Amino acid sequence: MLHVGINGFGTIGKRVADAVRAQPDMTVAGVSKRTPNFEATIAHDRGYDLYAAGEDGRAPFDTAGLHTEGTVHDLVAASDVVVDTTPGGIGAKNADLYADYDTPAIFQGGEDPDVAEMSFNARANYESALNADTARVVSCNTTGLSRLFAPLRERYGIEKARVTLVRRGGDPGQTSRGPINDTLPDPVEIPSHHGPDVQTVFPDIDVDTMGMKVPTTQMHTHSVNVTLESTPSATAVRELLTAESRLFLIPETLGIDGAGKLKEYTRDAGRPRGDVWENCIWAESVTVEDNDLYLFQAIHQEADVVPENIDAVRALSGRTPDAARSISRTDEALGIGRGLVQHGGSTARRTADD
Amino acid sequence: MLHVGINGFGTIGKRVADAVRAQPDMTVAGVSKRTPNFEATIAHDRGYDLYAAGEDGRAPFDTAGLHTEGTVHDLVAASDVVVDTTPGGIGAKNADLYADYDTPAIFQGGEDPDVAEMSFNARANYESALNADTARVVSCNTTGLSRLFAPLRERYGIEKARVTLVRRGGDPGQTSRGPINDTLPDPVEIPSHHGPDVQTVFPDIDVDTMGMKVPTTQMHTHSVNVTLESTPSATAVRELLTAESRLFLIPETLGIDGAGKLKEYTRDAGRPRGDVWENCIWAESVTVEDNDLYLFQAIHQEADVVPENIDAVRALSGRTPDAARSISRTDEALGIGRGLVQHGGSTARRTADD
Amino acid sequence: MLHVGINGFGTIGKRVADAVRAQPDMTVAGVSKRTPNFEATIAHDRGYDLYAAGEDGRAPFDTAGLHTEGTVHDLVAASDVVVDTTPGGIGAKNADLYADYDTPAIFQGGEDPDVAEMSFNARANYESALNADTARVVSCNTTGLSRLFAPLRERYGIEKARVTLVRRGGDPGQTSRGPINDTLPDPVEIPSHHGPDVQTVFPDIDVDTMGMKVPTTQMHTHSVNVTLESTPSATAVRELLTAESRLFLIPETLGIDGAGKLKEYTRDAGRPRGDVWENCIWAESVTVEDNDLYLFQAIHQEADVVPENIDAVRALSGRTPDAARSISRTDEALGIGRGLVQHGGSTARRTADD
Amino acid sequence: MLHVGINGFGTIGKRVADAVRAQPDMTVAGVSKRTPNFEATIAHDRGYDLYAAGEDGRAPFDTAGLHTEGTVHDLVAASDVVVDTTPGGIGAKNADLYADYDTPAIFQGGEDPDVAEMSFNARANYESALNADTARVVSCNTTGLSRLFAPLRERYGIEKARVTLVRRGGDPGQTSRGPINDTLPDPVEIPSHHGPDVQTVFPDIDVDTMGMKVPTTQMHTHSVNVTLESTPSATAVRELLTAESRLFLIPETLGIDGAGKLKEYTRDAGRPRGDVWENCIWAESVTVEDNDLYLFQAIHQEADVVPENIDAVRALSGRTPDAARSISRTDEALGIGRGLVQHGGSTARRTADD
Repeated sequence: MLHVGINGFGTIGKRVADAVRAQPDMTVAGVSKRTPNFEATIAHDRGYDLYAAGEDGRAPFDTAGLHTEGTVHDLVAASDVVVDTTPGGIGAKNADLYADYDTPAIFQGGEDPDVAEMSFNARANYESALNADTARVVSCNTTGLSRLFAPLRERYGIEKARVTLVRRGGDPGQTSRGPINDTLPDPVEIPSHHGPDVQTVFPDIDVDTMGMKVPTTQMHTHSVNVTLESTPSATAVRELLTAESRLFLIPETLGIDGAGKLKEYTRDAGRPRGDVWENCIWAESVTVEDNDLYLFQAIHQEADVVPENIDAVRALSGRTPDAARSISRTDEALGIGRGLVQHGGSTARRTADD
Repeated sequence: MLHVGINGFGTIGKRVADAVRAQPDMTVAGVSKRTPNFEATIAHDRGYDLYAAGEDGRAPFDTAGLHTEGTVHDLVAASDVVVDTTPGGIGAKNADLYADYDTPAIFQGGEDPDVAEMSFNARANYESALNADTARVVSCNTTGLSRLFAPLRERYGIEKARVTLVRRGGDPGQTSRGPINDTLPDPVEIPSHHGPDVQTVFPDIDVDTMGMKVPTTQMHTHSVNVTLESTPSATAVRELLTAESRLFLIPETLGIDGAGKLKEYTRDAGRPRGDVWENCIWAESVTVEDNDLYLFQAIHQEADVVPENIDAVRALSGRTPDAARSISRTDEALGIGRGLVQHGGSTARRTADD
Repeated sequence: MLHVGINGFGTIGKRVADAVRAQPDMTVAGVSKRTPNFEATIAHDRGYDLYAAGEDGRAPFDTAGLHTEGTVHDLVAASDVVVDTTPGGIGAKNADLYADYDTPAIFQGGEDPDVAEMSFNARANYESALNADTARVVSCNTTGLSRLFAPLRERYGIEKARVTLVRRGGDPGQTSRGPINDTLPDPVEIPSHHGPDVQTVFPDIDVDTMGMKVPTTQMHTHSVNVTLESTPSATAVRELLTAESRLFLIPETLGIDGAGKLKEYTRDAGRPRGDVWENCIWAESVTVEDNDLYLFQAIHQEADVVPENIDAVRALSGRTPDAARSISRTDEALGIGRGLVQHGGSTARRTADD
Repeated sequence: MLHVGINGFGTIGKRVADAVRAQPDMTVAGVSKRTPNFEATIAHDRGYDLYAAGEDGRAPFDTAGLHTEGTVHDLVAASDVVVDTTPGGIGAKNADLYADYDTPAIFQGGEDPDVAEMSFNARANYESALNADTARVVSCNTTGLSRLFAPLRERYGIEKARVTLVRRGGDPGQTSRGPINDTLPDPVEIPSHHGPDVQTVFPDIDVDTMGMKVPTTQMHTHSVNVTLESTPSATAVRELLTAESRLFLIPETLGIDGAGKLKEYTRDAGRPRGDVWENCIWAESVTVEDNDLYLFQAIHQEADVVPENIDAVRALSGRTPDAARSISRTDEALGIGRGLVQHGGSTARRTADD
């Protein structure tokens, strides 16, 4: 049983904690929190051991009547692996602490690549992280692109990829973030950092990315063009992608036109927090012209990296050498690939789970 | 065991169906749907008997590979009580059908008051609906106001109430609704229809309402002023309201500034779909100046009428003569008053449920 | 000819500068700017003398090829009156500078009331500012309320006022401000600061205010309730308000449902920047029940204080002792009350301008 | 002097009317309107002859006290050329009327291409429209792409173009349009209709387009990739584009990050309605990698087709055989290329206008 500490119990951290708890081979060593807000209450209600992370230590939690087990140092000491889910840039400041305790550590995509030995995506390079001291799970957008590129590259070869990432301005609770009524080229510079970030996972893929920011909170949406080295039919591509457990091909018949109905569907389906761990690809958008593949996909920025963090924990622990086995255990424990009607091949999968 | 049919499996209907299923004394006779979209898939996955409601009958569902048990007529015939959750104005057209089958029917607040014998709010007038043939559960906003006014009127007397209702433009999946960047007086006429609608529940309350519409999807927000017939302290009012099971007084310490964090909290807490069945009142907003009470409350338009529909089913059936007993069973089955940290008196309640 | 310096050439400052230039008895002594962005370019194109306000002095402007006349000290020295239109809280820091140069100064409503000798609204208390060294033009919302309350108080007496202010989250260019999809009680505390701020103008008016923030950029919208000391008809109130030059009663026939169409109308009408200097009151919303008056008004946060600043300049200069004369000159020069079709009495006014 | 009738006085029609009036060789024969709303008032205030277009004829205008000269038939009879600016799909229904009166007619991009003899863009194919009976000014997005592609194709050759169009959900006054909090692939099918529409202007350009819709009202934003047949430097491309009068290359120094600040700038600059007739290209986004050009451009959906309509009128009239001469007259009359600081070459142009 791996004891996993989660440093930071916010948007990503609380989801990683619940995902760790759902695994048969892991347990939550504890979680840290800076302020005793509603998420601290949730940690308490879940029965997670709570550790104080703020400059004022345990005092604010005492005042709020919330018991803490200690501070972040104690949490690191109690953990076999730490998942750092602090805000972007803070992870790097924590790196020495993890090294001091000789605790393997996983960072998030908000950190620079050099925070860790390698940048991680389970489908792409699980084996490279085996027994590593540190790994960085790439960002939600890079994760979404890596999952898509991996099977395309293997099957067809990728000559060139061009992606426009239309990003949500903030998460649902981030009320101080904008924009309110604007579409911002963000960054204005081309390529955006997403392309180089994909190359930390796939150094050989030639990819140019352009970023925008819009006034939504639910998901990112990518318009993807991949120039392939062969010319498959759109049907063949749909079948290839449908076979990937972390890609969800939205069937046209569901009548889902955007992130709103998509997340309503996953809330209806009983997903915790309505989370969508899979890339969501509109099946009818998958188009091939000559060797140019086009499609739209939506990425749930709060959720898609969660299973990747679980796999990264297994890889660093060295106990599960095989990527497919880790992915399969993670998916089974979380319910990935279950409960959502897939395009085409989906019926069988759904039946199997009924 | 009451067999409850739900005519319409959209935003309200699917929630009512799940709530019926959660009750010990009810079962879902079946649900109807016009088109085989993602919600039809959910009905199937939940194991609800599906009945075709559209003009094309069962054919579109056959095409989509979704089994139906029959049409709406068959559903009504199979039901002890029908809950009509069709879009506003359609319910009235269905009234004759329910009468033909002599099936007691519950309508929603989108219908005119004369669609049914009485307008219903569990806290306010449960007994008036006992053994009625028809009842109309008042709208989400009117439900929210009725729940608030009931204890205030009983304890302090209400001289006059004035409410501004800042309404969400559309639900999360209603992508064709606006406005995008505007605050609309809606209606421009004063009072809005909400005041007279409250008076279908409390004929003696003098209430003036003003409505606006804004570009949000999550909750309505009310700024409430009630001129009382006595002058309690704000603390006393908070205690009075905290004791009501369907009012949630948000403690200041949770750091919840709006609907975004509020619904993140309820999603974190594991509520199905993140639903908030309770009125959400900011505890620190509760203010009394002389005999004027002021407060802010948020209303989850998709969810707050759900427990009211359950209580209305019980009232029409006549099997549970006591309002408090019905409310308590509904709350217990759904988990209302559980899992959320209440202002002040909340700890005890939470502890009891731990 | 009064030489008016404008310290800060942002949202308010650039409008005040243009308004000063439009007056027959004033001229722009110069404007200050911290960074050579698009607004600095506009200052240059308008021919305003530009003064550097930032910590780096004139250097950034030199780099950008924009000529500056000096720094803010030079601007203050060159001005008969300074209008401080720096961001909220900065004005107070500039107060000593203006005093050092013995230059009368006008501050904005983002400053605390004690920044100046008095809080100013032209319609309410022009005379109190005559020959003062400093005055503070109250905020856009307070200006909007003061203009409305002044005639109501004079004609009918005000027993009590209750206002809910639904505020835009940010101005059109403020892309880092939110919220994106939320209605925030803001502040949660009641009353909001707006009520006390109105009382800096009308100490005898009993007013309670509640504030909210929503994801729009165009205008604030107020739902207003005024309990009067008499019981006029709605028609009488409409006539009273229509006679006020800085109140625009939107006729129902124009088909204007919110700020979007309202500002489209003023852009169509040729207003500079589409500015709406007047309170915009929906004529059909004006309702009287017993002695309770209700109405909706929209306030253009970027513009309504502009004519007030002009009048404040005249008051401080002491050259125009009469409020009505200053207001009339300001209105005439800017075109207030021209070009917009008023409810009822409007035809005559429009005809006069044709 | 050409007498130009404008059938439809809404978003596009009112702008075309003002643009016609600004031309030395044209006059407004009259405008039509269905309802006497605020735009009808504007038509009256501008002094345009007003013709009734609705089914109820002149009666609603009589009621509103607005004089009409007749109905649409009378307007067509009084016009040398008609510009049809009715909503999409209505233009086709009007085609017979224009033919009956033998009046040359210009349609908008909301109509199918076969509504007219040719699809028009002044920079691309002015000459093809000379003396035609009918022409269709392509849509705002297609106009934006045609203006950009024309010089690139001439100078470098275009091998392939790929564009993602992130479109505003509605115009500022269209309060019933959404989405509120969603990014919609729209259409889901790839390519969107925009690519084929560009090919009505440039049949030989291979272009694939993907469309999205987002909750904004101000401008469309395009992420553009053009694979060129040569490999110019980014600097060379910027110079090429800067030389085009209807392309505005936003200099980095202006600090303009999106449509909000962009339109604030054009409002500040005194543009009528703040209109931006030019494509707005972020200069720093112009990037060349091998022979792949990338850039971001924003398109003001209400305005960019306005000068094109003016040029189309001239082309149909046959009186100005030369495209460059028509474009130059239109630009001069409207002020295109004036008042905005261009990247690089801009100073000269600005100086010339000072």
